[in-house]
Amino acid sequence: MRKDTVKPPRSVPTRDPDSTPSTLVLRRVLIDTYHENVAYLHRDCAVYRAEGFRALSKVEIRANGRSILASLNVVDDSNIVACDQLGLSKAALTQLGAKNGDTAVISQAEAPESIGALHRKLAGERLNLDDFHAIVRDIAAHRYSKIELAAFVVATNRDELDREEVYFLTEAMAASGRKFDWHEHLVIDKHCIGGIPGNRTSMLVVPIVAAHGLLCPKTSSRAITSPAGTADTMEVLANVELPFEQLTKIVREHRGCLAWGGTADLSPADDVLIAVERPLALDSPGQMVASILSKKIAAGSTHLVLDIPIGPTAKVRSMPDAQRLRRLFEYVAKRMNLSLDVVITDGRQPVGNGVGPVLEARDVMRVLQNDSRAPVDLRQKALRLAGRLIECSPDVRGGDGFAIARDILDSGRALAKMNDIIAAQGQKPFDHNDPQLGALTLDVQANQSGVVTGIDNLQIAHVARLAGAPKVSGAGLDLFRKLGDCVTAGDTLYRVHAGFRSDLEFARQACTKHTGYTIGQAEDVPHAFVEF
Amino acid sequence: MRKDTVKPPRSVPTRDPDSTPSTLVLRRVLIDTYHENVAYLHRDCAVYRAEGFRALSKVEIRANGRSILASLNVVDDSNIVACDQLGLSKAALTQLGAKNGDTAVISQAEAPESIGALHRKLAGERLNLDDFHAIVRDIAAHRYSKIELAAFVVATNRDELDREEVYFLTEAMAASGRKFDWHEHLVIDKHCIGGIPGNRTSMLVVPIVAAHGLLCPKTSSRAITSPAGTADTMEVLANVELPFEQLTKIVREHRGCLAWGGTADLSPADDVLIAVERPLALDSPGQMVASILSKKIAAGSTHLVLDIPIGPTAKVRSMPDAQRLRRLFEYVAKRMNLSLDVVITDGRQPVGNGVGPVLEARDVMRVLQNDSRAPVDLRQKALRLAGRLIECSPDVRGGDGFAIARDILDSGRALAKMNDIIAAQGQKPFDHNDPQLGALTLDVQANQSGVVTGIDNLQIAHVARLAGAPKVSGAGLDLFRKLGDCVTAGDTLYRVHAGFRSDLEFARQACTKHTGYTIGQAEDVPHAFVEF
Repeated sequence: MRKDTVKPPRSVPTRDPDSTPSTLVLRRVLIDTYHENVAYLHRDCAVYRAEGFRALSKVEIRANGRSILASLNVVDDSNIVACDQLGLSKAALTQLGAKNGDTAVISQAEAPESIGALHRKLAGERLNLDDFHAIVRDIAAHRYSKIELAAFVVATNRDELDREEVYFLTEAMAASGRKFDWHEHLVIDKHCIGGIPGNRTSMLVVPIVAAHGLLCPKTSSRAITSPAGTADTMEVLANVELPFEQLTKIVREHRGCLAWGGTADLSPADDVLIAVERPLALDSPGQMVASILSKKIAAGSTHLVLDIPIGPTAKVRSMPDAQRLRRLFEYVAKRMNLSLDVVITDGRQPVGNGVGPVLEARDVMRVLQNDSRAPVDLRQKALRLAGRLIECSPDVRGGDGFAIARDILDSGRALAKMNDIIAAQGQKPFDHNDPQLGALTLDVQANQSGVVTGIDNLQIAHVARLAGAPKVSGAGLDLFRKLGDCVTAGDTLYRVHAGFRSDLEFARQACTKHTGYTIGQAEDVPHAFVEF
Repeated sequence: MRKDTVKPPRSVPTRDPDSTPSTLVLRRVLIDTYHENVAYLHRDCAVYRAEGFRALSKVEIRANGRSILASLNVVDDSNIVACDQLGLSKAALTQLGAKNGDTAVISQAEAPESIGALHRKLAGERLNLDDFHAIVRDIAAHRYSKIELAAFVVATNRDELDREEVYFLTEAMAASGRKFDWHEHLVIDKHCIGGIPGNRTSMLVVPIVAAHGLLCPKTSSRAITSPAGTADTMEVLANVELPFEQLTKIVREHRGCLAWGGTADLSPADDVLIAVERPLALDSPGQMVASILSKKIAAGSTHLVLDIPIGPTAKVRSMPDAQRLRRLFEYVAKRMNLSLDVVITDGRQPVGNGVGPVLEARDVMRVLQNDSRAPVDLRQKALRLAGRLIECSPDVRGGDGFAIARDILDSGRALAKMNDIIAAQGQKPFDHNDPQLGALTLDVQANQSGVVTGIDNLQIAHVARLAGAPKVSGAGLDLFRKLGDCVTAGDTLYRVHAGFRSDLEFARQACTKHTGYTIGQAEDVPHAFVEF
């Protein structure tokens, strides 16, 4: 062996300017970046140095014949990624179908196919159906950065979308994920646009209409900005995270379910967009219509009853606004061949007494048990909505639905159906006579005598969130007084339940600023000019 | 010692629900998150579990009497952060004035003060000066997330700002950082809105006007989307990252400088916004005016000559657009008491021959040396701009500026001034007869005979970027033919210089698709209806 052929060992990787880009070894980086793919490269990585990447630029990663886009974070710590490694979050590895130790190739990413369409929207142009398909496909495939997502959401905010574009967006969102086909003529659903604490009618409507024999495969969301979503409240009673096959089996067997929609992969672009809409508090009519209807179409619904609450602190605050929103929903539903029945409801105050998962589950079970402590407003609203859905049946006469629903509830058939659904999804221990509420409490009292003339939905939701709902399921508010009730100074308006002292303290500070209640004269109670 | 007082050692930190939130130990996490503060908490951290944080929510971190906002990333790896630690990037630690091992308290962040104003803008409302001050203050203090930044940029895009709002934004941006006061009546500056490769007139104008005795404290940016910014090109000749004190000393001594603006802290909100505008390719008139004028005001300029190039592939493509942009600049400048002279220039093709830091530095030095190889168009444009600036002097008659500038250049006084400035900033070795160009080359040839009728600024910039400019300073394009030149099929149009084979390959692929040159008949060369 000739001595000059022996090269000294190299401890630092170097790069020959003429070599082709090297492959890197994948390493799982256990940082939860939520809905955004992040790739971590060491600053001294030869590939990084050679390819002219820069922090936060988008890169394409290929492995196992698949590819994903990710934002690049540059790392100066070999304990996170070494020079020959490419760090990816768990979610990104899953998308790539790869695991720790696999090899991957990284390159500068071409912009997502639909970026041209996004730029045209930013420039104020109208987009066509193909543009929306391309954009939604890229969003659902996590090909947009948070910056691009925010740009899309703002550029389609307010009146930036005409109603035909809202239809295009709805169609594209419905097409982006899984689509259920129940092979039945009548698949019903109900939905509320949100904003009213305690409004847990779905958990009553589903067992009632399913007991009547209608097919109602209800999937719900968890709370986004509210103290509880239907999925959070149902989770107090039963398992809600059901694999696709189990969910369909339950629906076929029991004619209904109350499951979390997340695992069903319905309109997946919606979940990506919500992550941006939430921090911006954006909820424009176009985005709301596309979000709600795309999920219903994907869920295979043929008939939908839509609840639009109206009130001084509801999402919709005037009848003209409610009518405008109704017309947009109706236009898009018609284009999507969905039979839609919009009901404008009383959104002046929370529905029921409890606000927070356990407290709301208690109210729901009391209504189903025909318990004397059941909140009347929750019962009445659920019966009316269920009645409207029952009237979707060709054999039910208009106006008869309410009485049928009431019979089903009063006879205990709704409770029996609910128990079947709970058992099928996986029952959890719950006793509505002894609900597991947060042990730390605070009673908020009236500072004057009079009549309750206002309950601020937003402040009630805010205090309940601060108290820990929905993360702490037993946290929330128990309302002792509702609109029109007489109070004497010192009476308890509501009780706050919390699981942690710091949460109770946050809630206390908020209540001290504003209880959420207005007390005045009986004639100051605002009227509700709505159907029910 | 009684036995029952001895507690077993605990390996896993636990939390008493009734305890107050604990302090955490700061740990530097060496991940470069660019302009966004990120806080890393372990998922099992007692504070995280108790406080109801969620991934990507905003948190406030307090230490040493200071506080910052950050986005929260949740970590499942104790090697990155342990359960009792709070991880922060270097930039975040610096803002906090804290170091590894210091203690800090973390809490849910209140929304930045100006979020209400942002929401009003998103809802389409007009904002007032106080609103813009609040927003820009929060942006400069890194209190906005990338999502909020993107929302602001899109909501103020296109015609969303009226001209009074553009003035408010400019005023607020100028007020957000440092303000220079040179204590002189006449502080001049020049600026180009960008988009034309090779347009390095500042490096000629500054020595000419400084040699004439005018005060011209020129700070420039690095390339954002172009193959070279003035700071990148000047850096070939001299150090451009100057501490504030050194910069002011040089300006007072030599009447001019050519420094990078980044260390001067002028209009810091602008740098934060650019990080979002760049990936969205947004450059609306309002944002351009506020960005440029706020920096000039902060730099203490009293007189500005602004170059708006116009051409088929320039940022501004028609005379009506140029005039509209000019009027907006003039309106805001007047409100800011800045004397503004807008010149609309020929932007049909790149200026000079070189595109890329070293190649442009070569052209500049050849003009200063009165070398026969100096590009005539670069020399002429610089003389005309310098002439306009010289005419700001009260003792120079309108129309005399050009001749004065030419005398200064031809006599070698401009070169002598440039050499003084270079020496003061810190000279780097450079020989314009033997510039250190990228060793890998590619000659791009004409595929037909005729006359050059078009050179696409965007494609030329794109190819030069792919070839490695500005990161590889010797990379870029050397243009052998310009508009109106006759070519024979096979003639070299330009030479690509690169430092790495992969870069050359990217550039080759782009050139193969489109050279950037159009060859046709002499009468097809577009006319330039501009002043110069």
